[in-house]
Amino acid sequence: MSKGKVCLAYSGGLDTSVILAWLLEEGYEVIAFLANIGQEEDFEAAEKKALAIGATKFVVVDVRKEFVENVCFPAIQANAIYENVYLLGTSLARPVIAQAQIKVAEEEGCFAVSHGCTGKGNDQVRFELSFYALKPDVVVIAPWRDPAFFNRFAGRKDLLEYAASKDIPVAQTKAKPWSTDENLAHISFEAGILEDPNTTPPKDMWKLTVDPTDAPETPEDFSIEFEKGLPTKLILDGGKKVVTDPVELFIEANSLARRNGVGRIDIVENRFIGIKSRGCYETPGLTILRTAHVDLEGLTLDREVRALRDQFVTVTYSKLLYNGMYFTPECEYVRAMIPPSQITVNGTVRARAYKGSVSVLGRFSETEKLYDETESSMDELTGFSPEDTSGFIAVQSIRIKKFGESARDAGRKLEL
Amino acid sequence: MSKGKVCLAYSGGLDTSVILAWLLEEGYEVIAFLANIGQEEDFEAAEKKALAIGATKFVVVDVRKEFVENVCFPAIQANAIYENVYLLGTSLARPVIAQAQIKVAEEEGCFAVSHGCTGKGNDQVRFELSFYALKPDVVVIAPWRDPAFFNRFAGRKDLLEYAASKDIPVAQTKAKPWSTDENLAHISFEAGILEDPNTTPPKDMWKLTVDPTDAPETPEDFSIEFEKGLPTKLILDGGKKVVTDPVELFIEANSLARRNGVGRIDIVENRFIGIKSRGCYETPGLTILRTAHVDLEGLTLDREVRALRDQFVTVTYSKLLYNGMYFTPECEYVRAMIPPSQITVNGTVRARAYKGSVSVLGRFSETEKLYDETESSMDELTGFSPEDTSGFIAVQSIRIKKFGESARDAGRKLEL
Amino acid sequence: MSKGKVCLAYSGGLDTSVILAWLLEEGYEVIAFLANIGQEEDFEAAEKKALAIGATKFVVVDVRKEFVENVCFPAIQANAIYENVYLLGTSLARPVIAQAQIKVAEEEGCFAVSHGCTGKGNDQVRFELSFYALKPDVVVIAPWRDPAFFNRFAGRKDLLEYAASKDIPVAQTKAKPWSTDENLAHISFEAGILEDPNTTPPKDMWKLTVDPTDAPETPEDFSIEFEKGLPTKLILDGGKKVVTDPVELFIEANSLARRNGVGRIDIVENRFIGIKSRGCYETPGLTILRTAHVDLEGLTLDREVRALRDQFVTVTYSKLLYNGMYFTPECEYVRAMIPPSQITVNGTVRARAYKGSVSVLGRFSETEKLYDETESSMDELTGFSPEDTSGFIAVQSIRIKKFGESARDAGRKLEL
Amino acid sequence: MSKGKVCLAYSGGLDTSVILAWLLEEGYEVIAFLANIGQEEDFEAAEKKALAIGATKFVVVDVRKEFVENVCFPAIQANAIYENVYLLGTSLARPVIAQAQIKVAEEEGCFAVSHGCTGKGNDQVRFELSFYALKPDVVVIAPWRDPAFFNRFAGRKDLLEYAASKDIPVAQTKAKPWSTDENLAHISFEAGILEDPNTTPPKDMWKLTVDPTDAPETPEDFSIEFEKGLPTKLILDGGKKVVTDPVELFIEANSLARRNGVGRIDIVENRFIGIKSRGCYETPGLTILRTAHVDLEGLTLDREVRALRDQFVTVTYSKLLYNGMYFTPECEYVRAMIPPSQITVNGTVRARAYKGSVSVLGRFSETEKLYDETESSMDELTGFSPEDTSGFIAVQSIRIKKFGESARDAGRKLEL
Repeated sequence: MSKGKVCLAYSGGLDTSVILAWLLEEGYEVIAFLANIGQEEDFEAAEKKALAIGATKFVVVDVRKEFVENVCFPAIQANAIYENVYLLGTSLARPVIAQAQIKVAEEEGCFAVSHGCTGKGNDQVRFELSFYALKPDVVVIAPWRDPAFFNRFAGRKDLLEYAASKDIPVAQTKAKPWSTDENLAHISFEAGILEDPNTTPPKDMWKLTVDPTDAPETPEDFSIEFEKGLPTKLILDGGKKVVTDPVELFIEANSLARRNGVGRIDIVENRFIGIKSRGCYETPGLTILRTAHVDLEGLTLDREVRALRDQFVTVTYSKLLYNGMYFTPECEYVRAMIPPSQITVNGTVRARAYKGSVSVLGRFSETEKLYDETESSMDELTGFSPEDTSGFIAVQSIRIKKFGESARDAGRKLEL
Repeated sequence: MSKGKVCLAYSGGLDTSVILAWLLEEGYEVIAFLANIGQEEDFEAAEKKALAIGATKFVVVDVRKEFVENVCFPAIQANAIYENVYLLGTSLARPVIAQAQIKVAEEEGCFAVSHGCTGKGNDQVRFELSFYALKPDVVVIAPWRDPAFFNRFAGRKDLLEYAASKDIPVAQTKAKPWSTDENLAHISFEAGILEDPNTTPPKDMWKLTVDPTDAPETPEDFSIEFEKGLPTKLILDGGKKVVTDPVELFIEANSLARRNGVGRIDIVENRFIGIKSRGCYETPGLTILRTAHVDLEGLTLDREVRALRDQFVTVTYSKLLYNGMYFTPECEYVRAMIPPSQITVNGTVRARAYKGSVSVLGRFSETEKLYDETESSMDELTGFSPEDTSGFIAVQSIRIKKFGESARDAGRKLEL
Repeated sequence: MSKGKVCLAYSGGLDTSVILAWLLEEGYEVIAFLANIGQEEDFEAAEKKALAIGATKFVVVDVRKEFVENVCFPAIQANAIYENVYLLGTSLARPVIAQAQIKVAEEEGCFAVSHGCTGKGNDQVRFELSFYALKPDVVVIAPWRDPAFFNRFAGRKDLLEYAASKDIPVAQTKAKPWSTDENLAHISFEAGILEDPNTTPPKDMWKLTVDPTDAPETPEDFSIEFEKGLPTKLILDGGKKVVTDPVELFIEANSLARRNGVGRIDIVENRFIGIKSRGCYETPGLTILRTAHVDLEGLTLDREVRALRDQFVTVTYSKLLYNGMYFTPECEYVRAMIPPSQITVNGTVRARAYKGSVSVLGRFSETEKLYDETESSMDELTGFSPEDTSGFIAVQSIRIKKFGESARDAGRKLEL
Repeated sequence: MSKGKVCLAYSGGLDTSVILAWLLEEGYEVIAFLANIGQEEDFEAAEKKALAIGATKFVVVDVRKEFVENVCFPAIQANAIYENVYLLGTSLARPVIAQAQIKVAEEEGCFAVSHGCTGKGNDQVRFELSFYALKPDVVVIAPWRDPAFFNRFAGRKDLLEYAASKDIPVAQTKAKPWSTDENLAHISFEAGILEDPNTTPPKDMWKLTVDPTDAPETPEDFSIEFEKGLPTKLILDGGKKVVTDPVELFIEANSLARRNGVGRIDIVENRFIGIKSRGCYETPGLTILRTAHVDLEGLTLDREVRALRDQFVTVTYSKLLYNGMYFTPECEYVRAMIPPSQITVNGTVRARAYKGSVSVLGRFSETEKLYDETESSMDELTGFSPEDTSGFIAVQSIRIKKFGESARDAGRKLEL
């Protein structure tokens, strides 16, 4: 008699294979779920394995389109970035996967969902908070936080022995000394030898991008067009190659960045649960698209709108994404602030990728007129009375002179 | 009979030479002032020229040390950046120069100060607000905002003719089609052909840094040590070269960045007076120092202190610097918030410069223990109960489940 | 031959009457404009006077409905308040009046608009920035900033003499020793004897509200219903009186507050141009409506949405309103953030007005369920595992224990 | 054989008496601790009872002075307030009590601390996070989150039976239908009948303040002097009574407010753990002191410093206090931002308490000159050129005209 159906996020790897077998042993019926979010993966092998272990069903869901269009692109609009450096590649994927998993759980009549995340990381939080928002009555089975599980499987050896006992095939390749997580936007590397934050990652760890020193000697120039802050056209090869479909554009931006070694970072970040953690990331296309977007905002976005968006939306949205708070009232609220900030972000940025970096060559907009060459020109006085600036400075200085006088009266010298 | 003494910021160039002559013609006595803030300049020639034109005295003040120690280094501590991209090289210099000019004005008994800034730019504001704070009763003579001056000198031709009439020697070199401003931290290029924001700057415009494509094929690795967020040691050549004096360290960081093509940017920014403006900048050493500082904060700074500092101090301080508000009550207030944020920012960052970019290779701190390998490790449960995270997530989800239930009750489907 | 048509904001008082005559003298044709924004005013007398002085036409526009619905009500939704105290009564009115004046100017073919604001206050800025946004090519004639005018009319005596010379009738009532500005939301008192910030306003200065000591001995209870943060029903007299029309509701809230002495404040505030200024205000109805709205948000608004709205929208919107930045890109942007914050602000607040203050007696919502008595109850454990809180606290304490340990290791004692 | 010494926060009430007995039963030795933080309490009776039940020792610590000086006064400087309304009376007390309890625990050699807080409230979090910061290795025993305890004592009946079985005397007074917590700054009422947020508290619930309708018919005027934002003098009775000692001043401000019915609030607030909760509070003296402080900042604090402090310090500090984060790196950081904001907040506020409210009558400062009557005056042009404001407005309008033109070009009408 089954204790009920559980929808397990199944990757085909050792951990989730053991979890699958363990759930069956515990008396659950298991639906294995796997999201195709652009990672390099043998989906067929995973299916075969899941069914062999005893899953009732294996469901793979292709979420690449909604990942790019509904999550990655708005992140570009918002210039999302965490702790000055991290482009949130993993964080962006989590709500997409969670939504697909809950949908499968509901379609398959599962009362519970399960995952193989560890008890110290961000991903457990990101998945579960999304689960609870999308299906408040769902039960979450998190084996790595269940003493019955984690006490039994204290090390890799225990997992391997259990797998052997259950006839679960294990890849013969030696485990890499770090963990990875991959999707269309990025790959992450953490744990293992990377836990010493002073260990430089070995050259062969990096997977998506070529090493900058191995990248082509010739810079590669390209253009990106945006409409309302969304990338709508990527132009390569001096105009010979033009991509407009969002997913294709994103993949093409990835290729461009990958072959030029663009998008690597290495940081110590602060996990939601308050632990510091070292991560290495490759975020090729997103790095290029975000750089171009930031640049175009200089040309087309009003100063004050930009400042408000920077200080409130970018910072808040990035933190919410990182902490797994996508499906929350505050994140809905913050997302509502993105489109009104992007109305005028229309135009094209010309840029260059070269040996690990991307730089801007120029930008233009056919519709937006906030930048005005005549007005901007230092050599032109058309429509401008320099005396006005005298008044502007005089008024700005009212408060500042008072400050200077107060300091003087108090015998205090203002100094650098 | 003199109308009084004026302290003029004199560069030796055409504009300020004409202004000097014009001030004399207007009946003022002029003290020519020139700050040595690290720019490439022929100070002797400027002195000779100023005195030849008729200045009573020529005073050059070396402000490099206070520029680096009192302004550039705190900017590194604060990760100062304007509109996501600009490292504020010009903005940082202005209060230093203004303070020196006011000091000279006071020592020389000048009732007024004068400068050659145009009426549309940021620099006039930055200088004058500093003047008024430091000496609230000072008179500012800004010829480019005085109709008597700007109507008379409507174009370069007028300036040249006037110079000729006054026997002011003019460099025979053809004027470059852009303006520059240089100091120890950076050089800026703007105006002229750069006013079309889609014009890629010609390769020979860039001055401080080599073109990334011409930079060495071999990456150059180095280390930077920080104490309380201030750079205290730069280690090059695999340890063979070590610099610790702040000014020397800054200059050495410049050299390192310059020969590897690091620190170029090209943006459209928003001037204080509300006009958009295109600028190209080279900020070599500061780029490297800031990148390393940001990285070290990941390892050594508490998450919440960092977040508060990022959202309030970095953003506010950068804007105040840009707008010339250094000597204001609010800027004093914000500066007071920098040191308390940096108490734990002690450690060393290992990094690499290569063909235009700088990347981090690792970092460590001998004193700070916020990063804890055991605690961080995904493979370790020492001192950690995974069940706690279940409670953490359960409590976080209280509010989120309510949100999910409310949406469900309202017949609204939560979606990406 | 006329120099063209000017639309003058005309109040019927001495200043604008003199300005009207002076504009005619200067050769302009004048359309006198007067907004009915709820102030106590003899509109007919003003019309008669304007035409007598020589205005081509007198146009009065009733803007009360848009003032209440488009500006005051959103301000309630946003809990708008400036410098902790001021409810922005004057600021709210300015864009409404400016919009009406520009409309009249356009309908009447005026190339310019004019007003009687002084050169030191906020109102000139508020009006003119609105004018320029709504009609970027409009010419603004501000006599009190024009030396030809302000040098000629240096004191009240000059105005009176000029009025006499032009046969402009002047009210025989002695001028009050302060200035006022009134609209449906409030009345302001400033200048004159109030310029000493330690002078307590005389009892007979206050106009809209009774003195709290003279208010009824019996408290008056009432209820206000809100939908999406907008007041939709005011219930008085124990349910005998119910008002739902926005303007009527606003007027009724005013009466309620006025008879109970609610809504007086006395502050020193910071004008946009950087001068401190003392103001006394009566804002009766708005005080009551805002208090009730704030209370209802406690019951119905998610904590994080509220916190974001408080820190970003309330503060920013209030400052923009105060500084006259209503018709700006950033204000449009901030206004777009108000409605998404108010979706759940539905319910009723029961409150009491008594001798100068308003207090809340209770609140309820039939639709919103974020408040949950069972969940909130300290005596109930239904659906709640206290152990979860242990996990929550344990995770929160990870970072804090590290902080305590670091302090201890550094020999530093944490203290109050 | 004892399991070790526990320091229990003991109040003498039923809950902590049962906890004391239960801890002994569980094999611990118990040191009973009680903080005197200004609450009305029979300390001797509590001591007698604790020792009778079996505590090894009873320690009472008087923390009133540090509560007022180190916590309440800085809160006044920061204008601390949570969710627009709550003055944080309970939150302010928690770190003071926690620090005293940890000190006793250390002096008495206790390995653990214990408290009687429920598992749903804020106070458990506030106490425990402080415990962990101050003594990272402390063990916390929270019976109301321990199933062994809360399952055994499911209702008040169980507690009473256990008390009877242990000969613990129980007060014969009928339990009130709400809970209270009191200290020198305030008293809170929550739970019980207050859990219906629409239930108006019965008149006899309120304890510290008289009902406004019963307060004196004659307003009571007084003055408060501040130095660097700290209250230094309270002047009553027309100058006949002057108090300067911080604790005495605070108590006197309490009396003043209490007899005039000042300081009651009733709100629905958001607890840290994400549950909404209704609370009624009386915070008499703090209400008066905070109101006066806010007013004085109008006169003496620079606009921009105030705005920065309001947006960053007040909001952040209040949230940190509420969430029990006093002893955290970020709270230390934020506290460091308070004194630099208060340098100029020197002066006196004259105010009036009357039937439930406090209003300001005037204010002055003998040292601060930011307010300048001549400069502020609308009738004076000394030192002011009205033309400057024209320039100021012209420059402000550059960006705004562009906005208006863009809207016009896009065929969009700007509207209220």
